[in-house]
Amino acid sequence: MTTHPFDAAVALQPQPDGTWLGHTSPAYSNMVGPYGGITTAQALHAVLLHPERLGDPVALTVNFCAALADGPFVIMARPARTNRSTQHWVIEVQQGGQAVLTATAVTAVRRETWSLDEEPMPVCPAPAEVPLATAHNPLEFVKRYEQRHITGGMPAVWDGSGESSLSRLWVRDYPARPLDFPSLSALSDIFFPRVFIRRSTLVPVGTVSMTVYFHADAAQLADTGSGYLLGQAKGQAFRNGYFDHTGQLWNEAGVLLVTTHQIVYYKQ
Amino acid sequence: MTTHPFDAAVALQPQPDGTWLGHTSPAYSNMVGPYGGITTAQALHAVLLHPERLGDPVALTVNFCAALADGPFVIMARPARTNRSTQHWVIEVQQGGQAVLTATAVTAVRRETWSLDEEPMPVCPAPAEVPLATAHNPLEFVKRYEQRHITGGMPAVWDGSGESSLSRLWVRDYPARPLDFPSLSALSDIFFPRVFIRRSTLVPVGTVSMTVYFHADAAQLADTGSGYLLGQAKGQAFRNGYFDHTGQLWNEAGVLLVTTHQIVYYKQ
Repeated sequence: MTTHPFDAAVALQPQPDGTWLGHTSPAYSNMVGPYGGITTAQALHAVLLHPERLGDPVALTVNFCAALADGPFVIMARPARTNRSTQHWVIEVQQGGQAVLTATAVTAVRRETWSLDEEPMPVCPAPAEVPLATAHNPLEFVKRYEQRHITGGMPAVWDGSGESSLSRLWVRDYPARPLDFPSLSALSDIFFPRVFIRRSTLVPVGTVSMTVYFHADAAQLADTGSGYLLGQAKGQAFRNGYFDHTGQLWNEAGVLLVTTHQIVYYKQ
Repeated sequence: MTTHPFDAAVALQPQPDGTWLGHTSPAYSNMVGPYGGITTAQALHAVLLHPERLGDPVALTVNFCAALADGPFVIMARPARTNRSTQHWVIEVQQGGQAVLTATAVTAVRRETWSLDEEPMPVCPAPAEVPLATAHNPLEFVKRYEQRHITGGMPAVWDGSGESSLSRLWVRDYPARPLDFPSLSALSDIFFPRVFIRRSTLVPVGTVSMTVYFHADAAQLADTGSGYLLGQAKGQAFRNGYFDHTGQLWNEAGVLLVTTHQIVYYKQ
């Protein structure tokens, strides 16, 4: 039995000083450095492995300080405050003593309450009815995801003709893998840069900060298994070098698993 | 000339070790401890006062670890990474050596680029046409804001009849005060808990984490002056003790100043 590339990528070795040693994964490389989603998953994994961890992830914010160089990195994950049912984490990933990612997370023990999804899953064709994205993409991490674009895929022509940054797609790990919190955090970064879609123009970009709110608990992840997620993302403002997007991930049963937001640097 | 209560609240004293000493403000007290928006503004102010600060705020995430006790607090704001045009901040607010708030921020020097607001300001009546909220509210911080609720104000009856968590309001500091980054960060937390609106039911709540993306630069804040902001917020999921909302703040001219998100604990 071979290890799934995701599990190999998020593997961390405990160090005597309480930090974790990881290594960038060639399987998830992006244009410059690794896919931000895999670095996010590695940072979250350090929290989940911590012996004092209380509960499951509720909120995660990662700030990308610099592109990681291929090679090892160190993760420090510190519980800054532990309450009765919530815990606040401060995380930093370093290479050569320099911060390459800062992050905070909140974990919590959840109890069953009145619940309601107010943001409905958009009506979309089923995964089997949407063609698999097969266009050649030179980026290695793209091959780690099965993507079926419903609307707002990569522009067919780069002619400045875009009218909306809304994207919807079915997505899951490739090969398929049962969903867990680290892989869900990685999938939260799957959306192509909104500025590409909105402008049908390629410009240099880089995510600066991403926040993920986990609405799903472990049971809902288990229910989702290795099924598809419906991802939706839409930009709100593009202004002087930075744009944001707001996004959601539902499972096939229509349960909203994650809401996520990010702000991205763009040039020109 | 008297000091505006907001300026008094965010005043910080530099300490010999590079930290900042602040004090909770009775003018901004909430049900338990201070209004989260004022703690947010105090944390951001420590970054803005830092002698090594580069550029203006682009992203800010605050995690509320515990209600602050009335009294002094210490803020540590550390530039974890400084690049050519961006800077990454790690912030912690402590009382009695215990973390009460963790935060990260990104500041950046912005350059003029192609820009576009994709999320349009909703069509709403002008501020003068919307009645001032004058209902008695025992919370002190509420008196620090002029609020004119267009839709989704506090329910008139608490009968479980809510159907939507969407709120829109005109809001500004009271007394009026020219907008700056700290006051804009405080205003980003102005929305009543979505669970109150959606359920027309009062339950215990507390914001756990809030993220603010600043689309406005200093010139756009100056253009806004002490005018009204149109605030909009809507919940996406309410699930087992935590709900989120996604929100926006525009100025009267329709410029999207901020997009913001938060996740909030609720009981029952």
